[in-house]
Amino acid sequence: MADSFRGERQPTVGVIGDGDPRGPDAHRILEWAEEVGSLLARGGASVVTGGLGGVMEAASRGAAVAGGMTIGFLPGDDPREANEYVRLPISTGLGVVRNLVVVTSADAVLAVGGRHGTLSEIGLALRMGRHVVTLGSWRVESDQRMGGPRVHRARDPREAAHLALRLAKEGPVRPSG
Amino acid sequence: MADSFRGERQPTVGVIGDGDPRGPDAHRILEWAEEVGSLLARGGASVVTGGLGGVMEAASRGAAVAGGMTIGFLPGDDPREANEYVRLPISTGLGVVRNLVVVTSADAVLAVGGRHGTLSEIGLALRMGRHVVTLGSWRVESDQRMGGPRVHRARDPREAAHLALRLAKEGPVRPSG
Amino acid sequence: MADSFRGERQPTVGVIGDGDPRGPDAHRILEWAEEVGSLLARGGASVVTGGLGGVMEAASRGAAVAGGMTIGFLPGDDPREANEYVRLPISTGLGVVRNLVVVTSADAVLAVGGRHGTLSEIGLALRMGRHVVTLGSWRVESDQRMGGPRVHRARDPREAAHLALRLAKEGPVRPSG
Amino acid sequence: MADSFRGERQPTVGVIGDGDPRGPDAHRILEWAEEVGSLLARGGASVVTGGLGGVMEAASRGAAVAGGMTIGFLPGDDPREANEYVRLPISTGLGVVRNLVVVTSADAVLAVGGRHGTLSEIGLALRMGRHVVTLGSWRVESDQRMGGPRVHRARDPREAAHLALRLAKEGPVRPSG
Repeated sequence: MADSFRGERQPTVGVIGDGDPRGPDAHRILEWAEEVGSLLARGGASVVTGGLGGVMEAASRGAAVAGGMTIGFLPGDDPREANEYVRLPISTGLGVVRNLVVVTSADAVLAVGGRHGTLSEIGLALRMGRHVVTLGSWRVESDQRMGGPRVHRARDPREAAHLALRLAKEGPVRPSG
Repeated sequence: MADSFRGERQPTVGVIGDGDPRGPDAHRILEWAEEVGSLLARGGASVVTGGLGGVMEAASRGAAVAGGMTIGFLPGDDPREANEYVRLPISTGLGVVRNLVVVTSADAVLAVGGRHGTLSEIGLALRMGRHVVTLGSWRVESDQRMGGPRVHRARDPREAAHLALRLAKEGPVRPSG
Repeated sequence: MADSFRGERQPTVGVIGDGDPRGPDAHRILEWAEEVGSLLARGGASVVTGGLGGVMEAASRGAAVAGGMTIGFLPGDDPREANEYVRLPISTGLGVVRNLVVVTSADAVLAVGGRHGTLSEIGLALRMGRHVVTLGSWRVESDQRMGGPRVHRARDPREAAHLALRLAKEGPVRPSG
Repeated sequence: MADSFRGERQPTVGVIGDGDPRGPDAHRILEWAEEVGSLLARGGASVVTGGLGGVMEAASRGAAVAGGMTIGFLPGDDPREANEYVRLPISTGLGVVRNLVVVTSADAVLAVGGRHGTLSEIGLALRMGRHVVTLGSWRVESDQRMGGPRVHRARDPREAAHLALRLAKEGPVRPSG
């Protein structure tokens, strides 16, 4: 019955990263984010982000141009804050707490570059049982215990998107610490 | 440019109310919620709820059967918590805080019946500048000051949906206290 | 064992109201808030507020001058945002979500005046099972069902503080809707 | 004026770590947490935790036995959830979001051991501009940019407490990414 209204639910990948990358790697990070977004959309996933600039915008652009669904959870209370590639902008009014929604609403999480905000989201994703793929981002080890979420380091956007799609289809596991 | 990806953005109405209505009015409240959901969908609005039972489920059912978009912001971290009429279930991990997202993500809010949780959401909606329509729900007065959000009491589902659609198209105003 | 470290735990009353009252009643509202704060402190309660101006500051001033404990849960991330009468300023980083902490951390809640933000906090307090006393504030009815939290309308600060102290000592009850 | 009510404000250190440490290091982690709590209290700091078991309880016990102030921000709505060494238990109703309050309310953060929840809190602390000291915990690098919060790895509880006290007195800095 549910399926008649929901249709086939698409896997959802949360793409996280710096809202304003700077320094020598900034250009590459944004290119990676856009390519990752494109590959995820072509692989059949919805792309969830925090809806603002930098990696969020690049990943949304990649996905939207490829014809995919893009959802953006915004910190403020005005959906017009969203970048133009977010097809479903959701104003949350939650401020920094909206990061929890980005990772909890996703079936798996992909981090591209990123600073401390991204690190906290990686930790939160694992805490909520979401598998994480990293690309040019923090090195975080999986928990040793059985059954927890995994962290995979990808070497390039293609591997990152491929892994994220596979993990999103596996879906969340038991939360980890 | 944005429009090419976003298309025409549908107005969004948050429907709030009791997750488990009891007492002599319960049956009528659920019928109203379903009819309201149906009318909102036929009027071109997306219906946003807290994704669980009672009024949330009835409004989602009405909207989904009428072919409309239904979004459910769930308190927990598992999208399968959603009732079967939610086409886009979003697990937030926020607990009771998810109520803020239900009202802040909406262009206008419609309360059907409801107890104290609903009252807090009505107050929060007004606090976030969202116009509110009530149907068999709390009597709340608008703020006297100019420009704040308004509260309208509707007599039946038809009037409620009509008002909510109109107010959603007007969109949010300045937050009110 | 616990008691040896915690000592006798003081009852805690959350005082809520407008952060910037205006209009003809503003002066009286602030006087009431200050008197209420003073009476609560002299009655042995800690006073919890949102830590900013208006009713929050007046209630904190009344309590602090009377030698009582005042706790302020601030929306931002800097404890120096607090008014000067908050003895324990707690920066939460939660924005508007900090209102939930003000009511949930209290044994009972007292509303002095207030607009829609205050209404949402009254609803939230009842939703979390906290008894509520109102003074020149919204008229909200208790839920009909047995065992839920109660709402009392007080006529003056003395009655309000007296009721709030009594209800805080009773403590929270079953959440209500 | 403020000082007459607030007195000299004590520095506050948030102690974070596993609520249920297991494995070969569990015993040592708990001993470290207790010693750290004791040293912080004797150094004049208030100890803030999430108020539950494991590292939170051990740090609170160390601080409380040494006569220090212990604050616990609880996920649920009942202050009796707190371990017995929390002198000021604060029920937040925020669930996992309460972790943000633990780090944002602190002048500096000290991580003892910990899994992914702790990692997310370390990231969040840095994101909110709080310096972090780690003891047997995650290896996280500071941001390269000037002026951001720092991460120090301590070798033993004495060094950890000493560093945390010093950084708490320095206070928060500009948020970092």
